[in-house]
Amino acid sequence: MVDTRFFINKGSLTVAKIAEICSAELQTSAMADEVINDINTMFDAKKGEVCFFYDRKKKAQGAEIKATACVTTADLAQFVADGVAILTTDDPKLAALKLNEAMYAEKRPSAGVAETAVIDPTAEIGEGCAIADYAVIGANVKIGKNTIVEPFAVVSEGCVIGDNCRLGAHCCIAYTIMGNNCYIYNGARIGQDGFGFQTINGVHKRIPQLGRVIMGNDIEVGSCSCIDRGALGDTIIGDGCRVDNLVQIAHNDKMGRGCVIVSQTGIAGSCTFGDYVVCGGQSGFADHLNVGSGAQVAAQSGVMRDIEPGTVVMGSPSVPFKDFMRQVSFLQRNSKK
Amino acid sequence: MVDTRFFINKGSLTVAKIAEICSAELQTSAMADEVINDINTMFDAKKGEVCFFYDRKKKAQGAEIKATACVTTADLAQFVADGVAILTTDDPKLAALKLNEAMYAEKRPSAGVAETAVIDPTAEIGEGCAIADYAVIGANVKIGKNTIVEPFAVVSEGCVIGDNCRLGAHCCIAYTIMGNNCYIYNGARIGQDGFGFQTINGVHKRIPQLGRVIMGNDIEVGSCSCIDRGALGDTIIGDGCRVDNLVQIAHNDKMGRGCVIVSQTGIAGSCTFGDYVVCGGQSGFADHLNVGSGAQVAAQSGVMRDIEPGTVVMGSPSVPFKDFMRQVSFLQRNSKK
Amino acid sequence: MVDTRFFINKGSLTVAKIAEICSAELQTSAMADEVINDINTMFDAKKGEVCFFYDRKKKAQGAEIKATACVTTADLAQFVADGVAILTTDDPKLAALKLNEAMYAEKRPSAGVAETAVIDPTAEIGEGCAIADYAVIGANVKIGKNTIVEPFAVVSEGCVIGDNCRLGAHCCIAYTIMGNNCYIYNGARIGQDGFGFQTINGVHKRIPQLGRVIMGNDIEVGSCSCIDRGALGDTIIGDGCRVDNLVQIAHNDKMGRGCVIVSQTGIAGSCTFGDYVVCGGQSGFADHLNVGSGAQVAAQSGVMRDIEPGTVVMGSPSVPFKDFMRQVSFLQRNSKK
Repeated sequence: MVDTRFFINKGSLTVAKIAEICSAELQTSAMADEVINDINTMFDAKKGEVCFFYDRKKKAQGAEIKATACVTTADLAQFVADGVAILTTDDPKLAALKLNEAMYAEKRPSAGVAETAVIDPTAEIGEGCAIADYAVIGANVKIGKNTIVEPFAVVSEGCVIGDNCRLGAHCCIAYTIMGNNCYIYNGARIGQDGFGFQTINGVHKRIPQLGRVIMGNDIEVGSCSCIDRGALGDTIIGDGCRVDNLVQIAHNDKMGRGCVIVSQTGIAGSCTFGDYVVCGGQSGFADHLNVGSGAQVAAQSGVMRDIEPGTVVMGSPSVPFKDFMRQVSFLQRNSKK
Repeated sequence: MVDTRFFINKGSLTVAKIAEICSAELQTSAMADEVINDINTMFDAKKGEVCFFYDRKKKAQGAEIKATACVTTADLAQFVADGVAILTTDDPKLAALKLNEAMYAEKRPSAGVAETAVIDPTAEIGEGCAIADYAVIGANVKIGKNTIVEPFAVVSEGCVIGDNCRLGAHCCIAYTIMGNNCYIYNGARIGQDGFGFQTINGVHKRIPQLGRVIMGNDIEVGSCSCIDRGALGDTIIGDGCRVDNLVQIAHNDKMGRGCVIVSQTGIAGSCTFGDYVVCGGQSGFADHLNVGSGAQVAAQSGVMRDIEPGTVVMGSPSVPFKDFMRQVSFLQRNSKK
Repeated sequence: MVDTRFFINKGSLTVAKIAEICSAELQTSAMADEVINDINTMFDAKKGEVCFFYDRKKKAQGAEIKATACVTTADLAQFVADGVAILTTDDPKLAALKLNEAMYAEKRPSAGVAETAVIDPTAEIGEGCAIADYAVIGANVKIGKNTIVEPFAVVSEGCVIGDNCRLGAHCCIAYTIMGNNCYIYNGARIGQDGFGFQTINGVHKRIPQLGRVIMGNDIEVGSCSCIDRGALGDTIIGDGCRVDNLVQIAHNDKMGRGCVIVSQTGIAGSCTFGDYVVCGGQSGFADHLNVGSGAQVAAQSGVMRDIEPGTVVMGSPSVPFKDFMRQVSFLQRNSKK
């Protein structure tokens, strides 16, 4: 049951229509005209609702499904309770995504500029933007079309923001050039000084940080994540990257396309990542590392050396996955003697 | 010495009165009428002040106590300097808590709504609330009685907040139903989208996050901590949970009552915790885990499997505490050969 | 190339002048009058630009330098491409710092108080301060001269802030006495309650936190970092400390001078650090530890015991650096058998 205080229900759908949206095959054609009003989990769904069932470990619970319809795989369909309309597809997760979008919309602020927003007269704001109460937009900022700026967001002097972006509440964007379709979550900090200083006679003297943050298109940056600007040259985040909450990306890091950086990961300065690198939660990277495309770094790993493309590593210091598993099993076997 | 620029001193107390407040026994009855003006640490307390002494490791320093009165245990009383009024109790920490509350109050904003607060006309604000400058409260929000909303807090459309809550400066509350007596610290982020996407032909497509965050009563959420809302179904935080600063709680996590989540812990999605689970600082949890009631997870542990109730685990990957200690000692012994 | 949308170029310099600024020796005196307009990396610098070359691992790329001038060491000078003006110095990094400052300035808000700032009438603001839009400054706050307060910063009742400080956007400062020349980054949280409670019959009862945060001079605190105030007595940050982003410093921690705390480090309560302690990223400290001056704690270490001055430790639980390396190599050798 989706709470309509928070989301907009676009209206009911027949089981047949759901099959179409989900690119699924309706196995129980007699139920094609049954009406579905809502989406729910396989445990909570009731009459009038559709659920999704794709976790093999839950197959015993398939018999307890009380939904009117269930989207599942051909393989799992046999476990679904009698009387439930069955829709089969190779990819129920993708089907769920499509149906979510078809049945519900998130609320979106209407275009316009709130009276309490402080926008420098030299800033350029594109058509269709929604600038919320108490947004602060500095001199010479350029914002594209249909971008949403939420309350208390700060976009500092000179920044360029693309079309269809969403800058969350309390985020800070400074020294940054950002592409289109980027979603910056509440409280993310982008473009502040990197952690650079030189210690001269016991005094840590700050090195002026003269670079920028360059962000491509279709990027998400999670809540309270920090991306520092370059010291000289830029910090670069490639198209399609997904950065979770509470992540640290230091000065002059360069991410390729589609990297996935899970929560609380920390990447020291001047690292270069290829495309589609995956960093598990709380993983850490020393500075100046090269991480090849498609590399996967397990949660809590501590990476101290370059990683070849496509490699899976784990541990602190990180080693290839198989080596890590051997170390773990060696320790378990031998320490009990 | 408590700084009265920041806290309200409620006035002096006699040693006898302090004994009463602390449920302590006054061993030096001749000093019952001595006046105490302040609380201080055992190292810094001077004449006219009371201190607390309960750390056995500090017993040698008992002789240097200069306070007028000292609350301690029957056991440690012998180590206190001569001339100090001695009050004994089984639980000096609890006594300290009680005396803190009796001698000092935190300053509290007075009820009322600041002129610069932006409150949607459809929002309902209970009696006695203090809504600070530049708070933003969205459409159809309901806030109970005597709740404090600090500057720049954002409570988004549809949220329900209970009585006697405190929403810290710069916090964001969205898609959330919150009980009574909850204290959200500055800059906490509650209810944003979980980190959910599906990768289709190399594109990470965001899965609409249609759930909520459901919070019970008497919960604290620390500064810059993030609690994502459910993808479908809810993220749930049980009554009495204590969440420290910079913690990540992902979509669809479910915490029982009284869990204690120390700073920088990260919990991946769809974990289910029982009651009174304790997570040490920087511990991490893989997704979809069950963690039984009373389980204790040491700092920096990396939990990859379910944990039975009452178990103590440590290490990354985590193992039972005794096994971890055996591994550590095995490594120390053997690596030096 | 430094982006002048963000930074102020102070004007061109001759190679001779750059040698003077950098305290470097010009090896190619025929080029003393060549004009330099910009600073760039050794890979991107073009004619009219100066670059710095000090990384031995990059010596093969020295031949590809296209800059007009290159600041390097006597040792690396031989690898620089022909036709480039060569300036040698023992410390090219320091030279870069000096030249950065000579060629560029960061933009600085002009002094004055924005109309939308909310400043309590009892607050005292020194000469030359720049108080931005929507700053909130509480009762009896004292702020020194030439301090910058950025948008949405909150300085709560009773705080004292020194001269020449910079309080970043969305930061919160409460229960704090701060010296001069401190730079608090966007979204840092200073002075909130520590994570202190006592569990009485299953109820976690908050212990009133009656201490403060005392900060010396010349301190930096990174974005989204949290420094909790003392429970009784103070949390103390010594002169010259550098705290990176997303760091947790708990109640009653005491740092000496010049400590360097890298991103995502977590320090539990009541630890005492000497001077110039270095904490690598994601390192963690149990409570009540003493860490001696000059100790170095490697990234991701988990410190459970006191550390002697000058010691280097690593691992979780942390051990002396050599022991850690032995453990790693023992495990690697033996687990593959």
